[in-house]
Amino acid sequence: MKPHPVRMASIDYKQAGVDYGKIDPLKILAQQAAAATAGNLQRHGMREVAASRGESAYLVDCGDFYLASITECLGTKALVADATRKLTGRTYYELIAQDTLAMAINDLITVGATPLSVHAYWAAGGSAWFDDAQRAKDLVDGWRAACDACGVAWGGGETPALAGVVVDDRIDLAASCVGIVRPKARLTLGEKLGPGDAIVLLASSGIHANGVSLARKLAERLPAGFGTKLPSGALFGEALLAPTVLYSPVTEALAAAGIVPHYQANITGHGWRKVMRHAKALTYRFHTLPPVPEVLQFLQRETNSDARAAYGNLNMGAGYALYVAAADAARTVEIARNAGVQAWIAGSVEAGPKQVVLESLGLIFGADDLHVRA
Amino acid sequence: MKPHPVRMASIDYKQAGVDYGKIDPLKILAQQAAAATAGNLQRHGMREVAASRGESAYLVDCGDFYLASITECLGTKALVADATRKLTGRTYYELIAQDTLAMAINDLITVGATPLSVHAYWAAGGSAWFDDAQRAKDLVDGWRAACDACGVAWGGGETPALAGVVVDDRIDLAASCVGIVRPKARLTLGEKLGPGDAIVLLASSGIHANGVSLARKLAERLPAGFGTKLPSGALFGEALLAPTVLYSPVTEALAAAGIVPHYQANITGHGWRKVMRHAKALTYRFHTLPPVPEVLQFLQRETNSDARAAYGNLNMGAGYALYVAAADAARTVEIARNAGVQAWIAGSVEAGPKQVVLESLGLIFGADDLHVRA
Repeated sequence: MKPHPVRMASIDYKQAGVDYGKIDPLKILAQQAAAATAGNLQRHGMREVAASRGESAYLVDCGDFYLASITECLGTKALVADATRKLTGRTYYELIAQDTLAMAINDLITVGATPLSVHAYWAAGGSAWFDDAQRAKDLVDGWRAACDACGVAWGGGETPALAGVVVDDRIDLAASCVGIVRPKARLTLGEKLGPGDAIVLLASSGIHANGVSLARKLAERLPAGFGTKLPSGALFGEALLAPTVLYSPVTEALAAAGIVPHYQANITGHGWRKVMRHAKALTYRFHTLPPVPEVLQFLQRETNSDARAAYGNLNMGAGYALYVAAADAARTVEIARNAGVQAWIAGSVEAGPKQVVLESLGLIFGADDLHVRA
Repeated sequence: MKPHPVRMASIDYKQAGVDYGKIDPLKILAQQAAAATAGNLQRHGMREVAASRGESAYLVDCGDFYLASITECLGTKALVADATRKLTGRTYYELIAQDTLAMAINDLITVGATPLSVHAYWAAGGSAWFDDAQRAKDLVDGWRAACDACGVAWGGGETPALAGVVVDDRIDLAASCVGIVRPKARLTLGEKLGPGDAIVLLASSGIHANGVSLARKLAERLPAGFGTKLPSGALFGEALLAPTVLYSPVTEALAAAGIVPHYQANITGHGWRKVMRHAKALTYRFHTLPPVPEVLQFLQRETNSDARAAYGNLNMGAGYALYVAAADAARTVEIARNAGVQAWIAGSVEAGPKQVVLESLGLIFGADDLHVRA
């Protein structure tokens, strides 16, 4: 049985309110200005790791270690929690707390860093937000649990009430994370990335925190909204709220086992196009695709998205990519599974033009499909 | 001539929309949960500096150095820029960029850290915010200039478009900052703070970024709003937008001169009550008060605030406090002035109950007037 009577027209990201064409000029201006500040570190006898610009975390060379840092936000997933709460009574804030931390931690670890401490940034639309004790407690509990899962210390944070800036009864959730790469040989900026490497994909739990605007737009058009039942019986809203997988237990376990990936990519916005994030011209060929979580199957189908739109914007079951020496691939999978995360040897790196090839779908993303650098 | 015909009733913070009574229970819950994560660092062979909890930046002991981190937000000052722009056509975003960075950097340096890198967090109410090229350029330019002034590298950031979370055409500005304390002897958590220390105050430029809600409330009640002229002829809005002083050039110059303060306090929310931020029971007695910036004189007068309300919530001319050995006080003032920041030997630390005494005003803030710790 179809969950709603009328097929909707295809929705794309622009219709969902996120217009990357408008954001990018500022991003480029900011990236250029940011790059120009690198020389400031000389005053302190340090220097930046230039190759970390354009990567997911920023690195400063402090002599005997690299200092890694990142700030990331949840995006609009709190709106899904707020809407689904009206249907079920649960707040889900313990889950989106994990999402928020995952956004920061999963980025930080891509460069080979051990995450050490995080700061919370919880900007509410007014003091009244904090009146809801259950929601506040769930947010705190989930934040702590995610810190414990990743072995990071929660150092502090900001909980401003920003009436007039943040929408009334809403909250803007973000996290910053700091870590170090020590020994420096743990650095994974892709210097060794090359033909012959295996690509191990780590499973996602669902939509994570990217593609949420699209999902919200879809919910608006579904008669039962976030209360729409998926084939399994799960509510669409609750399925979306499966929290982002925390991948640092995997990367720390790899380090403990002496495996240093050649490169790592957190698969977030731009979906599988992120696989070719590194500046090198290489072909990333996949012979195996992970199973697609039900909520992403539903999202693809109900938005009439083709495979290009789906894999080009959503994680489609793969939340993180590890590029490892072929000889390390099987052990990498084993270590990930032992750390509680499903993993597959899904593809390999080849000499060739910069592209991502999904063989079973006959799908190719070329270099022109991804612009993450100034 | 009075700038407006009718004296308004006194405004306090609750009326201005910031109800600390509502925020605090969550803060306490979060502080307790955060403190409980300290043990996680043992997995990585590190430990937190417990004494940094309750201070302005968080510290992890990494062996031969301390890692310092902080995340701070601008608050609602962007609303003042937006409103004043309508009167003058200037965006002022280069100024509030500096404010945002100052919130983070001025906190980070209190523990003795050298700030190394910052991340920007600019969450807009929708992609359309970025259409305004002048405003975006000013924000980028001001951010870069502040980084250059402080010798920090701008590592990256987030520029999300959060329609439905952030108010349309508004922006939530925040910054995170990372630094290190090296050598470890530069740590200034107050271990040596004690009777006989001199208190050197560094000048503020105006309201900085604390008390802005109160100023906005006042503007609503002034017939000419932010266009009200101060006695000097300056517009109220523009006077409020004088950017927060960046104090790290002073603290770095002190370090270069071999002066390690016994303690440092960034005077932000809670005004001069922050002077007694440290956990120790000590009396902080001031014989000298810095000149009060015109905009703060105006704010105090027009909100019918007495000295207790003014000094208890606003910086009243003192943006930062350095607690130094009496023998270092004169040189500290000289070094600050050489770094371009006005400074005064304004008081001293005495044995006695925890309190801040402003002699010339006959004003005393007691321990019960400040609650910044769980």
